[in-house]
Amino acid sequence: MSGIFQDAVFGSLFGDPEAMALWSAEAQLDQFRKVEAALSKALAEVGLVPQDQGSRAAAYIRTAPIDRDRLAEGCAKDGLPIPNFVAQLKENAADLAGAIHTGSTSQDIMDTALSLTIRATNDLLLARLASLTDALADLDRRFGATPMTGRTRMQEALSITVGDRIKAWRDPLLAQAASLIALRPRIERLQFGGAVGTRHAYGERSDAMAEAMARNLGLTNGPVWHTDRSSLVMFANQLAILSGILGKIGQDITLMAQQGIDEIALSGGGGSSAMPHKSNPILAELLVTLARYNASQMSAMHHSLIHEQERSGAAWALEWMVLPDMAVATARALEVAVNVCGRVTQMGQRT
Amino acid sequence: MSGIFQDAVFGSLFGDPEAMALWSAEAQLDQFRKVEAALSKALAEVGLVPQDQGSRAAAYIRTAPIDRDRLAEGCAKDGLPIPNFVAQLKENAADLAGAIHTGSTSQDIMDTALSLTIRATNDLLLARLASLTDALADLDRRFGATPMTGRTRMQEALSITVGDRIKAWRDPLLAQAASLIALRPRIERLQFGGAVGTRHAYGERSDAMAEAMARNLGLTNGPVWHTDRSSLVMFANQLAILSGILGKIGQDITLMAQQGIDEIALSGGGGSSAMPHKSNPILAELLVTLARYNASQMSAMHHSLIHEQERSGAAWALEWMVLPDMAVATARALEVAVNVCGRVTQMGQRT
Amino acid sequence: MSGIFQDAVFGSLFGDPEAMALWSAEAQLDQFRKVEAALSKALAEVGLVPQDQGSRAAAYIRTAPIDRDRLAEGCAKDGLPIPNFVAQLKENAADLAGAIHTGSTSQDIMDTALSLTIRATNDLLLARLASLTDALADLDRRFGATPMTGRTRMQEALSITVGDRIKAWRDPLLAQAASLIALRPRIERLQFGGAVGTRHAYGERSDAMAEAMARNLGLTNGPVWHTDRSSLVMFANQLAILSGILGKIGQDITLMAQQGIDEIALSGGGGSSAMPHKSNPILAELLVTLARYNASQMSAMHHSLIHEQERSGAAWALEWMVLPDMAVATARALEVAVNVCGRVTQMGQRT
Amino acid sequence: MSGIFQDAVFGSLFGDPEAMALWSAEAQLDQFRKVEAALSKALAEVGLVPQDQGSRAAAYIRTAPIDRDRLAEGCAKDGLPIPNFVAQLKENAADLAGAIHTGSTSQDIMDTALSLTIRATNDLLLARLASLTDALADLDRRFGATPMTGRTRMQEALSITVGDRIKAWRDPLLAQAASLIALRPRIERLQFGGAVGTRHAYGERSDAMAEAMARNLGLTNGPVWHTDRSSLVMFANQLAILSGILGKIGQDITLMAQQGIDEIALSGGGGSSAMPHKSNPILAELLVTLARYNASQMSAMHHSLIHEQERSGAAWALEWMVLPDMAVATARALEVAVNVCGRVTQMGQRT
Repeated sequence: MSGIFQDAVFGSLFGDPEAMALWSAEAQLDQFRKVEAALSKALAEVGLVPQDQGSRAAAYIRTAPIDRDRLAEGCAKDGLPIPNFVAQLKENAADLAGAIHTGSTSQDIMDTALSLTIRATNDLLLARLASLTDALADLDRRFGATPMTGRTRMQEALSITVGDRIKAWRDPLLAQAASLIALRPRIERLQFGGAVGTRHAYGERSDAMAEAMARNLGLTNGPVWHTDRSSLVMFANQLAILSGILGKIGQDITLMAQQGIDEIALSGGGGSSAMPHKSNPILAELLVTLARYNASQMSAMHHSLIHEQERSGAAWALEWMVLPDMAVATARALEVAVNVCGRVTQMGQRT
Repeated sequence: MSGIFQDAVFGSLFGDPEAMALWSAEAQLDQFRKVEAALSKALAEVGLVPQDQGSRAAAYIRTAPIDRDRLAEGCAKDGLPIPNFVAQLKENAADLAGAIHTGSTSQDIMDTALSLTIRATNDLLLARLASLTDALADLDRRFGATPMTGRTRMQEALSITVGDRIKAWRDPLLAQAASLIALRPRIERLQFGGAVGTRHAYGERSDAMAEAMARNLGLTNGPVWHTDRSSLVMFANQLAILSGILGKIGQDITLMAQQGIDEIALSGGGGSSAMPHKSNPILAELLVTLARYNASQMSAMHHSLIHEQERSGAAWALEWMVLPDMAVATARALEVAVNVCGRVTQMGQRT
Repeated sequence: MSGIFQDAVFGSLFGDPEAMALWSAEAQLDQFRKVEAALSKALAEVGLVPQDQGSRAAAYIRTAPIDRDRLAEGCAKDGLPIPNFVAQLKENAADLAGAIHTGSTSQDIMDTALSLTIRATNDLLLARLASLTDALADLDRRFGATPMTGRTRMQEALSITVGDRIKAWRDPLLAQAASLIALRPRIERLQFGGAVGTRHAYGERSDAMAEAMARNLGLTNGPVWHTDRSSLVMFANQLAILSGILGKIGQDITLMAQQGIDEIALSGGGGSSAMPHKSNPILAELLVTLARYNASQMSAMHHSLIHEQERSGAAWALEWMVLPDMAVATARALEVAVNVCGRVTQMGQRT
Repeated sequence: MSGIFQDAVFGSLFGDPEAMALWSAEAQLDQFRKVEAALSKALAEVGLVPQDQGSRAAAYIRTAPIDRDRLAEGCAKDGLPIPNFVAQLKENAADLAGAIHTGSTSQDIMDTALSLTIRATNDLLLARLASLTDALADLDRRFGATPMTGRTRMQEALSITVGDRIKAWRDPLLAQAASLIALRPRIERLQFGGAVGTRHAYGERSDAMAEAMARNLGLTNGPVWHTDRSSLVMFANQLAILSGILGKIGQDITLMAQQGIDEIALSGGGGSSAMPHKSNPILAELLVTLARYNASQMSAMHHSLIHEQERSGAAWALEWMVLPDMAVATARALEVAVNVCGRVTQMGQRT
């Protein structure tokens, strides 16, 4: 059950194959290639290496053979995979070695690759958000006019409609989709600073380099963020808000599904090994679990802001442990929520 | 030491009198009055009560005698102070009772009062952010050109200047000041939903009521957010990012102040009861402490998103326990950072 | 609302006057006196100062005038109050100065005082635990035989009795009371290490000094724990487990109190400003809130384990911010749970 | 990088193959078999099924073919794998079906299997703790007498020896090893409650059943803990304390390794892609990262105490997401710490 998203058994419940593919070792390696290739191209564009060297190096980097076992060993030794990745690239690069990784540093490659992964994740999240808000709109069409009891502090308050409840679920999702879209330029961003974040190796061409790389990769250009991890925390915060909103929906559904309340009926509930009559709202419960999981991870992301000096290995690696799984948990929660909406056969007061 | 910000002894270190005043019981009561007064006025503006009743009620509410002990007793009984507050208001209101709290609910008053407090807090934070970025600019002017050793993973990397280090401290603060300003309309917002968040009591006049109240209070109008606490989480996230950035500065200063490194000298360090020679960088340490405090609180804020049904007493009260102290800790951290800047007598390599 | 336990209004709901008194500035100062007095006495017992100097110093310390404002100023300057406290003690100590704080350090005084406070807190918690388990036993006597529906995953499972549910509430409390008792020697412990935790100033008499102090204060003797904060984390863990168990009880009660479920009735519920018919289970909700509050604080306590070198000001101060409020929250939760038990007028299936 | 312990690249740095094997899907399935087999045997021992049925069923369960894909599908549908696991067992069990899972429930199987995994984890942790305290004792023999500077609040305090520092690292580990040993009976414990935790299906034989199962599995017998997750929180707390102590060691080592301080030298440091001269203390940093990771997870474990009614799917699944990875992180931290000790070539003041 360690690595529960990937677990051969529990992964079917918690895992999200599509999101996990974006954050896989395979995908990361591919992003490293893209970033190094963009760097080689940019070196040529700004005139730091001959034009054809840049484009040949970029082409080479995209398909150069990388031994995974050596990469993993290098990661264990160096604390991250880039030094070995670059070494492997250079081994067979012949005359192109000078156009590879020149003036750069591991963090530039890792962080920019992360930005590419975040961009792909955002595409996925926004697509699922659209499906979910559609599914909720559909529920509203089907059941919105049905009366139900509004409850505050878990006590009967005044009568509302199913539509009122669904509005309280859906509006925050629309608002957060807008927030995430607004945040994209801030978090889909080039990292480009060199060894100590000063871009010193490129001299007067450093700004042109940054501009070329950002353009080639389709990322935002901007100041170095080696030790300013605020943007990642803002991204994590969006993830945990999304899963939190879904956790509220899941909590509401488990409450509505109680016998005696009977405000929702769902097809295909979970079975029990002891009680054949049961039909458990396990997907609604899962929404609560995923919300509380992400909520707990947020504090780790905030602790990782305390990045000493020009680079903190300790703080940086904490992000790696936490952020990818938060992204997967959020994507999974969206998928689960869409799934739950599709199972609703009754909402509101029974007639 | 419980309530450390207010503690008679430790409060001198952790507390922030100005921020604490904004979040005091006194100030909250004052905000309750403002919100109820705006409600009475709005009732008249939209024609739900006679014009003069609205303005007389508003005037009355602003100065009506409120017995604090009864208010506290009411809070203990009802789980929040508003029912008793309204009861006290109505007791001596004579013919104005019908123009007080009509159609509203405790949460509307509490949350809108919170928005007013957040607005005042934002003013304070932004003023201090400006002082701090000025103080850092001043340090840059004094010491920016001095060389120092860039360090990554706590090891010597390449030579940088003091200006490079200060830039890595200051740029994130400027970015977060801009983020906070952009967030203000989202978090300085009217809450207006009535008993179950549907504004049902005002019928066709509900939108006009909301508009009138928002205008009178200078807050953003928008949808009900009774159970959508995302905006508060976004505010808390800004607070913890700010204190996190300051925690990084504090951590760097403690590292720079080590004998053997000697990259910073500070006047007025903390004394020791055992070692008279010591001059401890206690304010820099405090920045780290406050950052880790806020980082830890963030998970509570995210758990509070899981708000069941039309109002969760349990989740809502968790915000009250956490958010005010996060605001105080952040304000204090900004004050401390400004203070530390003013104590710097040397930065960078000693000559 | 900052410092909610102490807040003039909200303190009536969240605060615990008895527990807060134990952790007040007043009580801390008193504990500082006790520890310094025990130190003076021990110095004489082991022959490091003349016998009468030790006892006269001890007597003097217990009542010497301490200016609170100066103490607070000293705390702000030095990062903790002991240097100024010792300075004030010595000012009027005349010939006794040599028998005051000799060979000690601020942390020894602070941590040992903390142990005394923890001891008093444990007495309070255990007394309340006894009241609560009695109250639950009483509920069991009154309602234990009544049938009710066992629910798993929030769905009807099989019939149980009220006694089964109460047993699941009470057994964990009994087990944790036993755990807390077993933990006491570990956490009610002398701190005695001197400037850098080596007891160097007392030479061959250091063990005798430690033994004398522990005996005089009624604390466990043992190795120095300046930088080993595990015991405090174990204490905090007990606190959060206790409040967590109570949170489960509170959650169950709010679920049982739902109309449509109707498995519990409570007298004296909270009123609403909008809905006069309501009787909200606000104390049960408060148990959930306090549980989630403490749960969130636990991560801060664990982060405070990372104590650099011979003393970390940053990590240490994080404990001060978090542990006292966790203790108050736990004490309050126990009080609230007893209170709730006393309000129960019906449990289980209605007849 | 999702599932970083298992990641094909980053797993070499964060992963712990031995610990991960204990928590793998494979190992869990094996534990499920052991528990179901012990149940079948116990049913026969207490006379609920014929003697030979019990032993034949137990033998069958240990090797019965289980289709993994169906198991995963079942887990996705039911929220946990046991209903499908039992269904698969029964399919080919012919006349033995009545001796399989009788009177039990999924949670009994899952939780008891967890106890077996925890037992194996504790064996591993204690073995590594012994290696580590030996390695530290060895460092003490080699360097203990060397003087070094004691530092408090990151400032020079008084001279100590390397042995003093090592003692402050090693004593807490010895104390926690003892605590973990003392905790074992509490956490290596049978779960046995049936559908709603009342053992109702076994009537008068329920205690005999529990005793037989505990004996067969070598676990502690005791009360049902379906909704009392305190023991798991106590286990998690031990894990996070252990990794926290190692985090302190890691933090100290990174500080000692700074140029200008030069109190430790380590062979085989991490390389940089930009700065060939660097030898980064990446394993010491990793100890800090793993400590902060576990610290952050602790709050999730405490939130999972709030288990509604007779079983909370939402709270329970949160444990599954968090506890296994905490165990792996702790095991890895111990391995890393032993590794770091073996790389030390100098400690204390350079001669």
